[in-house]
Amino acid sequence: MILCDIGNSTFHFLIEGKEQKYFLHENLPELKKRIYFISVNEKATAKLLSQYPTAINLEQYMKFETTYVGMGIDRKVACVGCENGVIVDAGSAITVDIMEDGVHKGGFILPGIKNFREIYPQISPKLDFDFSIKLNLDKIPQNTKDAISYSILKAIILPIQEIAHNKKLFFTGGDGEFLSSFFPDSSFKKDIIFENMKGIINANSCIA
Amino acid sequence: MILCDIGNSTFHFLIEGKEQKYFLHENLPELKKRIYFISVNEKATAKLLSQYPTAINLEQYMKFETTYVGMGIDRKVACVGCENGVIVDAGSAITVDIMEDGVHKGGFILPGIKNFREIYPQISPKLDFDFSIKLNLDKIPQNTKDAISYSILKAIILPIQEIAHNKKLFFTGGDGEFLSSFFPDSSFKKDIIFENMKGIINANSCIA
Repeated sequence: MILCDIGNSTFHFLIEGKEQKYFLHENLPELKKRIYFISVNEKATAKLLSQYPTAINLEQYMKFETTYVGMGIDRKVACVGCENGVIVDAGSAITVDIMEDGVHKGGFILPGIKNFREIYPQISPKLDFDFSIKLNLDKIPQNTKDAISYSILKAIILPIQEIAHNKKLFFTGGDGEFLSSFFPDSSFKKDIIFENMKGIINANSCIA
Repeated sequence: MILCDIGNSTFHFLIEGKEQKYFLHENLPELKKRIYFISVNEKATAKLLSQYPTAINLEQYMKFETTYVGMGIDRKVACVGCENGVIVDAGSAITVDIMEDGVHKGGFILPGIKNFREIYPQISPKLDFDFSIKLNLDKIPQNTKDAISYSILKAIILPIQEIAHNKKLFFTGGDGEFLSSFFPDSSFKKDIIFENMKGIINANSCIA
């Protein structure tokens, strides 16, 4: 079984337990096994299907209860199966979603760390500093570089802290491990999307 | 007396109690009275001084105690004279500064609301939504537009709330009045920079 998570900028494959990323314009590999995919990108979906007409879109096989309008399928897949908790997917954007009794209660979208940092030089060239990952958040910043890194981290951490309250916190995505280090009782689940895609396939015997 | 606060993009004058803004490339008005100014922009300072050679830079007349490195003169002027409190100047950036016993203890720099909003479409065209100023922050967002506005507001409000704790909060700047509405015991001081510039002039009889 081959899995593919199609995002805004990449095809993200899981092939025999190994992850492979291809940019949208790149040629896709020759694959013999059945492909199961999810996609937030129609054009890329069309490209995948033209090369692999038997690939199965898992979206139609997913049960997901929410009143939220406009939730991407990747966000839904990251949340599915979680009974109670907060799921944080920290990539180019940081999506934060709340699950209660297996039902999605809503969520919010912060900018990812890299994109957050890139706002500053757009405001003023004097604010063009690298993000420093080693920063004591208990100290009030004493220079511009620390002031920016402190602000980025506080702006991301505090809204998550507030919404999580006593709920379980799960992190995934490229900055997930780093951010989870600020939340003592949180878990980092690197492959939550692929794991949950497998769960959807197993729950639907007709496509398994 | 004429006051001028020179920023990154404008000359901001106070002439006979009336504010006037000029972009950096615009011709400056004919002014007969003595001009007192502060500036974060060397090129614009040179332009002002070439037209008004007797204009007085207030920076040299200001006493301001801080260990913070790289603090703009406008930020210092907004803070000067505050014994205990947090000063928030909400413009293209939002500077947050902490004063204790008349000494500056440090601060941080969040993106301004407008610049914050503009990150989102840079992440994905699906995140291109106007900021909604009327939003119930006690409700978990149920759609992308609310999710973005909620995130922007929480990312700005919570770090200010955390640092302010039991201190007095003062807001100034273009979004100062709006942001102060989220802090019941805060004050909005529209003209804090000009007021404090007058204070510096009055405290220095040699230039008054």
